[in-house]
Amino acid sequence: MHSIETSLGVWRDALALDLETVMDIPSDHVRIAFLGVGESKIELVEPTDDSTGVARFLANKGEGFHHICFEVANLAETLLRLEIEGIEVIDTAPRKGAEGPVAFLHPRSCHGVLVELIEAPGGPAWAALGY
Amino acid sequence: MHSIETSLGVWRDALALDLETVMDIPSDHVRIAFLGVGESKIELVEPTDDSTGVARFLANKGEGFHHICFEVANLAETLLRLEIEGIEVIDTAPRKGAEGPVAFLHPRSCHGVLVELIEAPGGPAWAALGY
Repeated sequence: MHSIETSLGVWRDALALDLETVMDIPSDHVRIAFLGVGESKIELVEPTDDSTGVARFLANKGEGFHHICFEVANLAETLLRLEIEGIEVIDTAPRKGAEGPVAFLHPRSCHGVLVELIEAPGGPAWAALGY
Repeated sequence: MHSIETSLGVWRDALALDLETVMDIPSDHVRIAFLGVGESKIELVEPTDDSTGVARFLANKGEGFHHICFEVANLAETLLRLEIEGIEVIDTAPRKGAEGPVAFLHPRSCHGVLVELIEAPGGPAWAALGY
């Protein structure tokens, strides 16, 4: 039921967003899809087993918005600055993501919103929502 | 506590997004802010009294993601097509929004995500999240 295939019926077919990628990320136990919207992307996330945070999110809250991601030029430097400014970080150092180094900020520090930062020097910022 | 001023400490100051607009929308009993992210925008929504859906959302669920908005070229035509395709619409016809005709789609039909459509011929698509 919580499948990318099913949800593409809304995002790709009904809302006519442009499906760019569907791929497995075995290291994260998820399958993801990206749909382009201007310079941003909608990310659909489908857990491939029950071990992930996304699987627990779906079990507890059901489908819906999961996180938003912003590109930053220098992630390690940004994390250090955010910690000094009192933002609670989930990852104190960049870790390997599917598309580059990433880190998450805790929703407690971001008004209820789970924020991901990805290092992408000079690239446009983009946003994601998950299943 | 649920104020745009407070949350700008995260979105504008810590995450360095570009604050474009803060304005009252008396007809909707809300105050909103837009922050630019590439071709998209982050919208912060602060209810000015307890009468709105956003105020009830905050009381029930707390701060967090509220909705996502996509631009479409012809909103009336899009709504008609979506209804035929079985998407449950909250607004069966376009209604006046702060920046043009808008309509909402029910989260039940959109995998838990409240979707807003705004008529903006030829413009870039953008996304919003609310408080």
